[in-house]
Amino acid sequence: MLDSLQQKIAPDNHPAQHDPMVGHRLTEEPYFRAIGDEVNLFEAAHRLRLPMLLKGPTGCGKTRFVEHMAWRLGLPLVQVACNEDTSASDLLGRFLLNRDGTYWVDGPLTSAVRHGAICYLDEFVEARQDATVVIHPLTDERRTLLLDRKGEVIQAHPDFHLVISYNPGYQSEMKRLKPSTRQRFVALDFDFPPTSDEIEIVAAEGGVDPALATRLVDIAHRSRQLKGNGLDEGLSTRVLIYAARLMRDGLLPLSACRLALSTPASDDAEICTALQNFAEAHFSA
Amino acid sequence: MLDSLQQKIAPDNHPAQHDPMVGHRLTEEPYFRAIGDEVNLFEAAHRLRLPMLLKGPTGCGKTRFVEHMAWRLGLPLVQVACNEDTSASDLLGRFLLNRDGTYWVDGPLTSAVRHGAICYLDEFVEARQDATVVIHPLTDERRTLLLDRKGEVIQAHPDFHLVISYNPGYQSEMKRLKPSTRQRFVALDFDFPPTSDEIEIVAAEGGVDPALATRLVDIAHRSRQLKGNGLDEGLSTRVLIYAARLMRDGLLPLSACRLALSTPASDDAEICTALQNFAEAHFSA
Amino acid sequence: MLDSLQQKIAPDNHPAQHDPMVGHRLTEEPYFRAIGDEVNLFEAAHRLRLPMLLKGPTGCGKTRFVEHMAWRLGLPLVQVACNEDTSASDLLGRFLLNRDGTYWVDGPLTSAVRHGAICYLDEFVEARQDATVVIHPLTDERRTLLLDRKGEVIQAHPDFHLVISYNPGYQSEMKRLKPSTRQRFVALDFDFPPTSDEIEIVAAEGGVDPALATRLVDIAHRSRQLKGNGLDEGLSTRVLIYAARLMRDGLLPLSACRLALSTPASDDAEICTALQNFAEAHFSA
Amino acid sequence: MLDSLQQKIAPDNHPAQHDPMVGHRLTEEPYFRAIGDEVNLFEAAHRLRLPMLLKGPTGCGKTRFVEHMAWRLGLPLVQVACNEDTSASDLLGRFLLNRDGTYWVDGPLTSAVRHGAICYLDEFVEARQDATVVIHPLTDERRTLLLDRKGEVIQAHPDFHLVISYNPGYQSEMKRLKPSTRQRFVALDFDFPPTSDEIEIVAAEGGVDPALATRLVDIAHRSRQLKGNGLDEGLSTRVLIYAARLMRDGLLPLSACRLALSTPASDDAEICTALQNFAEAHFSA
Amino acid sequence: MLDSLQQKIAPDNHPAQHDPMVGHRLTEEPYFRAIGDEVNLFEAAHRLRLPMLLKGPTGCGKTRFVEHMAWRLGLPLVQVACNEDTSASDLLGRFLLNRDGTYWVDGPLTSAVRHGAICYLDEFVEARQDATVVIHPLTDERRTLLLDRKGEVIQAHPDFHLVISYNPGYQSEMKRLKPSTRQRFVALDFDFPPTSDEIEIVAAEGGVDPALATRLVDIAHRSRQLKGNGLDEGLSTRVLIYAARLMRDGLLPLSACRLALSTPASDDAEICTALQNFAEAHFSA
Amino acid sequence: MLDSLQQKIAPDNHPAQHDPMVGHRLTEEPYFRAIGDEVNLFEAAHRLRLPMLLKGPTGCGKTRFVEHMAWRLGLPLVQVACNEDTSASDLLGRFLLNRDGTYWVDGPLTSAVRHGAICYLDEFVEARQDATVVIHPLTDERRTLLLDRKGEVIQAHPDFHLVISYNPGYQSEMKRLKPSTRQRFVALDFDFPPTSDEIEIVAAEGGVDPALATRLVDIAHRSRQLKGNGLDEGLSTRVLIYAARLMRDGLLPLSACRLALSTPASDDAEICTALQNFAEAHFSA
Repeated sequence: MLDSLQQKIAPDNHPAQHDPMVGHRLTEEPYFRAIGDEVNLFEAAHRLRLPMLLKGPTGCGKTRFVEHMAWRLGLPLVQVACNEDTSASDLLGRFLLNRDGTYWVDGPLTSAVRHGAICYLDEFVEARQDATVVIHPLTDERRTLLLDRKGEVIQAHPDFHLVISYNPGYQSEMKRLKPSTRQRFVALDFDFPPTSDEIEIVAAEGGVDPALATRLVDIAHRSRQLKGNGLDEGLSTRVLIYAARLMRDGLLPLSACRLALSTPASDDAEICTALQNFAEAHFSA
Repeated sequence: MLDSLQQKIAPDNHPAQHDPMVGHRLTEEPYFRAIGDEVNLFEAAHRLRLPMLLKGPTGCGKTRFVEHMAWRLGLPLVQVACNEDTSASDLLGRFLLNRDGTYWVDGPLTSAVRHGAICYLDEFVEARQDATVVIHPLTDERRTLLLDRKGEVIQAHPDFHLVISYNPGYQSEMKRLKPSTRQRFVALDFDFPPTSDEIEIVAAEGGVDPALATRLVDIAHRSRQLKGNGLDEGLSTRVLIYAARLMRDGLLPLSACRLALSTPASDDAEICTALQNFAEAHFSA
Repeated sequence: MLDSLQQKIAPDNHPAQHDPMVGHRLTEEPYFRAIGDEVNLFEAAHRLRLPMLLKGPTGCGKTRFVEHMAWRLGLPLVQVACNEDTSASDLLGRFLLNRDGTYWVDGPLTSAVRHGAICYLDEFVEARQDATVVIHPLTDERRTLLLDRKGEVIQAHPDFHLVISYNPGYQSEMKRLKPSTRQRFVALDFDFPPTSDEIEIVAAEGGVDPALATRLVDIAHRSRQLKGNGLDEGLSTRVLIYAARLMRDGLLPLSACRLALSTPASDDAEICTALQNFAEAHFSA
Repeated sequence: MLDSLQQKIAPDNHPAQHDPMVGHRLTEEPYFRAIGDEVNLFEAAHRLRLPMLLKGPTGCGKTRFVEHMAWRLGLPLVQVACNEDTSASDLLGRFLLNRDGTYWVDGPLTSAVRHGAICYLDEFVEARQDATVVIHPLTDERRTLLLDRKGEVIQAHPDFHLVISYNPGYQSEMKRLKPSTRQRFVALDFDFPPTSDEIEIVAAEGGVDPALATRLVDIAHRSRQLKGNGLDEGLSTRVLIYAARLMRDGLLPLSACRLALSTPASDDAEICTALQNFAEAHFSA
Repeated sequence: MLDSLQQKIAPDNHPAQHDPMVGHRLTEEPYFRAIGDEVNLFEAAHRLRLPMLLKGPTGCGKTRFVEHMAWRLGLPLVQVACNEDTSASDLLGRFLLNRDGTYWVDGPLTSAVRHGAICYLDEFVEARQDATVVIHPLTDERRTLLLDRKGEVIQAHPDFHLVISYNPGYQSEMKRLKPSTRQRFVALDFDFPPTSDEIEIVAAEGGVDPALATRLVDIAHRSRQLKGNGLDEGLSTRVLIYAARLMRDGLLPLSACRLALSTPASDDAEICTALQNFAEAHFSA
Repeated sequence: MLDSLQQKIAPDNHPAQHDPMVGHRLTEEPYFRAIGDEVNLFEAAHRLRLPMLLKGPTGCGKTRFVEHMAWRLGLPLVQVACNEDTSASDLLGRFLLNRDGTYWVDGPLTSAVRHGAICYLDEFVEARQDATVVIHPLTDERRTLLLDRKGEVIQAHPDFHLVISYNPGYQSEMKRLKPSTRQRFVALDFDFPPTSDEIEIVAAEGGVDPALATRLVDIAHRSRQLKGNGLDEGLSTRVLIYAARLMRDGLLPLSACRLALSTPASDDAEICTALQNFAEAHFSA
């Protein structure tokens, strides 16, 4: 009877007994539009398994790019959105307790290292110092991960590839990559796509015609000039797609712009008004 | 015998075995009075499942609006009042211990994601960074929630819709939505209702006649002009309803105003006197 | 055998199996002397179950008033002296561990909500933010308490009434009620009683004749003028009663004043001397 | 077999099964020399069970006085040296875990309240806020102690008497008794004893003749004038007794003074030299 | 049956039952090129077991040197990358819980002390104070390690040798070795290798011809002159090898330089441009 | 079977069942050279069991002196290197968990108090406040130690003697002995030994002839004049012995000086050069 009880609990407590990469494999090709040679460069870094750093503003497509590369390379993708409370344990795993004592549950990084996934640590500079340091032996010749709590050293799966990202325009003085970490990576710079590409993306993902997409991208360009003048970040491609979808769904363009662009962008009433004025200039005529 | 003991404990320890949304379904229609096209816009965002941000001052009706929309859409509503101690675990859930080891209890966000509720995170900017970040994969194409402690990735129920709110007039410099979070939402601005609407609300909810409600709303309007001059927030619609109910219950108007309006509003004696003077101007004649 | 062992432990670990309000019912009427219409106003707020805030200086009788109201209304009274370490768990309850795993023990607020008591949270502004926020759904239409750790939503007992207090003259800038909390309460201002009332209270509770009580109250009045000039608070009615009892017990008046009034009131030697001079002016002649 | 195992562990884990006041009863009369009417005043406060506050510098005899009063009144004495890490749990007690789950162990304050001891909380202002607040219901009419973790309310034993102390000359701005705590106590001021008394004490406790004691007390008097000029506190009676004992044990007076007085008193070389010069002025001639 | 279950778990929970130094022995000779007499000096310190401190910039080869020495001396090498969260427990070990209660798992330092490894604590100044202090008795005549949680004193294995490192050019004012720690070590200064050595290393490890390696090293030299002028650290030998490998893999030299040298080195656009200009000066002609 | 299992675990979990002072008894006489009357004064303090404070710079021989006194007095010596994370629990002990629940493990101070050792708390000012306060009742007439978590009061073994130390030249303003702690100790000042003594020590412990030792001591003297001018502490006797041993082992004198004296002493290149210049002045001629 104890056995059956144990089994009833097991699926919940021992998810790793199944394919541990379930939920990390992409089941359909994500939409992606290359801007430059980023696919090429990522593939080169991947062939040599050089750890990869992606730099760029919020919502410019870093995550989408990594998803595309995982799909293209046929690898599972383990993603972690790092924050100032992300500790080494959050990446490595921890001991849990069951009837027979403690047992170990791999964290996302350990899973990726063990089973050969791309591990994407988003906003990595936000993580705590101890999280930063655990990746060091993964990023040099050793390609090992030390689970110090278990006394286990894992040799990375040949397919394992580490990718981190951050937004260099937003990070504070306190939160920077230390040189000893930084010099373990090769890096790609990301930015918002060129106008024609962005129009095509908004049209394709928002389901609207290019003329409407053009107007939205133009609003975004004007917003990006406000950056630093009351706006932390210009409007991202993502929110343009939001606005496009709301219009396609039947909302009036000015309502859609207010809902998706000008109201969420800032808490400063003047900024919000300025953004809505951009929208009126494009849509009320 | 152990089995029966276990059963005696189970109801307490495994409340989720029943309908987990019990207590989250509204059993009667909440009073609500629309001011503009907010119902329309919410429904558009809901159809596309775009994450929704509500901005506005204390007691202006944001919570009531979300309750109304949950009732209208026939969805359960899971509410969390966030604060500076709200962590990712408070939203996601945690492991508890019983005789057979640890077992998992879903937090409010996980419950809503799993069972298809509207999840309303009130005063979301107050929450800790790690709580802020867990909603990211819920707010883009993925609509997934990662329970990193369990190694489980949950695909959101089709009905799940995320709504957050905060009061932009009150939050500190330290507590702001980061652009990488902000640009995942569409937003609605809330404010106190227009005079005629507010009078109708106070009369209806306070159970008093419109003439008396008019006098209370007028006091509130005068108080809102004191905002920033010693008063953090003007008198809310909610406290006007308190005063109205006390009067209907038989209290003298000036006593009711002192009890519900002028004494609680501030700790500055001059402000309290000014507010009570407004009341006397309306009620002692 | 295990069963009997369990029973031996149970009384200690499961005190809630008995009447959980034992120890919270007042067994004799507390001494109380009304100053104005505070009883009337409290009863009005109680009929509508409007959350009640009491403001006033240390030792002016707020606690005594709540005890009186609980006695008058025939309700149990659950008191919590809040401080800067008071967390939500301290109010809500927590899981403890026994042989069969964890079990839940209601905190004082949960007990009061469940069993229909007046819950008096003294010095509520001192409590931590997460404690402040848990009372929100208790103070609006919902009258619910969310035990997030258990996933339980409690509908408040019809008799439940929430009362909080603080001392507005003492709280720091950092510790203030946020408007979103403040505007959920009706409020009463407390202060030291008028002279004739205070004399009667000191005589009655201290067991001395009115002439002696008059001299003590006069010392207190003079001390209260020193407030802000080296003295954080003037002498309270409580310490006058201490001095009166010491005199009735046979101590010389000047010794009693030194012991109960001038030495404890301050660590500033000049202030202590000034207070003892007041005493000498009244008692050494 | 399990039973006997349990018993082997029990004495260690359940010390409270014996007389819980063992180790807290004074087995021999401590040396004490009254300076003024402090014994009288303490007895008056004790008869009325008024909480007692002792103020005075380091090493002036506060602890010795409380020991004397406990001996005189025939009561056990529970002492706690408070510090900035002293929490409510340190005073109240905590749950420990054994084979059958958690069980409660009374902390020192709870022990004293339950079994009728004098509880002496030394340097009470150093303790954390939550520790400060737990004594409130013990210090008014209620004389109750709330063990919130257990849900138990203890009515204080009739003999229980609370005594706290601090050094007003040393405490920082941050560490002060709040008025709401302070006005619950009667207070006695302590200082170093008058010259003739201090000489007698040093002679009696140090085992030296009055002439030698006189010289030591004179050095102390001169050191106390340096207070604030590089010396946090003047030499205490305790260290004079140390020096006296070392001399009686055969050490040269100047060596004893260097060892017990001038070297430990400060880390400032000039102050140490000044103190040793005082010693040379008295002993090298 | 429980027994077999236990055994199934044991390998995971008791890794120390096997050769505890597995995973810490170098299985192939690491590439290493001596620059001066560092091998000689390390061997002298090792013969006397004098604790060794290595100082030098990021990526200049300290880790590689220690690996070489471990290989040369035939000793296992236990490495710990210290960070600001590294505590004594992280080095010493901790108690874990299984079915029979707690059991101890040696931390990396304890393992090395017990089994006779070189223990290399990288970036040791980053570790917490308590971690710093545990090595003291290991670094004097005693050569003991105190496991205070276990009450065990370990005499170091005769082969045990302690090596620590840090980067003196990067550490903050707050993070410095205290003199009481510093004066327990002998020390070696490391820096980037001389030009001809660095060219040879880049050619050998990057798999490129010396002419190409020369150009890369020249870029690095120019970058190192920017140190302090916007660049925390000049380009390390490691990233030169990255660039070399990417070129050998077929990437255009300027793409490889952008990917491996100029983009990762800094978040300052001007610095990145300056570095890429160096690359263009060497590769575009 | 349970019994045997228990026994297998016991040696590890109950080390105190053997002689708890094993590992704390000195098995051979440590090298020690008295400079003044410190042995005499320590013995006087020990006879009266007066708590002893040793003040002096890093590496001047305080630890060696205490070891010598323990050897001389035939007492076990329990040493604790305190740091800013040292808490009361680290000194007193803690509860651990095994199959039968929690059991207590004495900390180093408790062991010494119970079994009659000299307890040497090195760098005591670094410890946390709660650790500072637990020694108070050990340092006056009571000579008791309160294990508040166990509710146990231990009367110190007659042989127990408390010794603490710190470096007055290095401690910060924040880390000072409070007067209420300081005035419980007698104190000895330590400094580097006089020239002739230091030469003899270096020659004896380093195994070199007095002429070579003289040159090393001369370098140290010159370094100590740099203290405060870029050097936190002058070269200690310990590092002179390191250098001497390296020379005896065959290293060139200048290499030995660089390895043991000039490189480890500072991270300031000019200071290191200055120190190495001192070495060259003595050894290169």
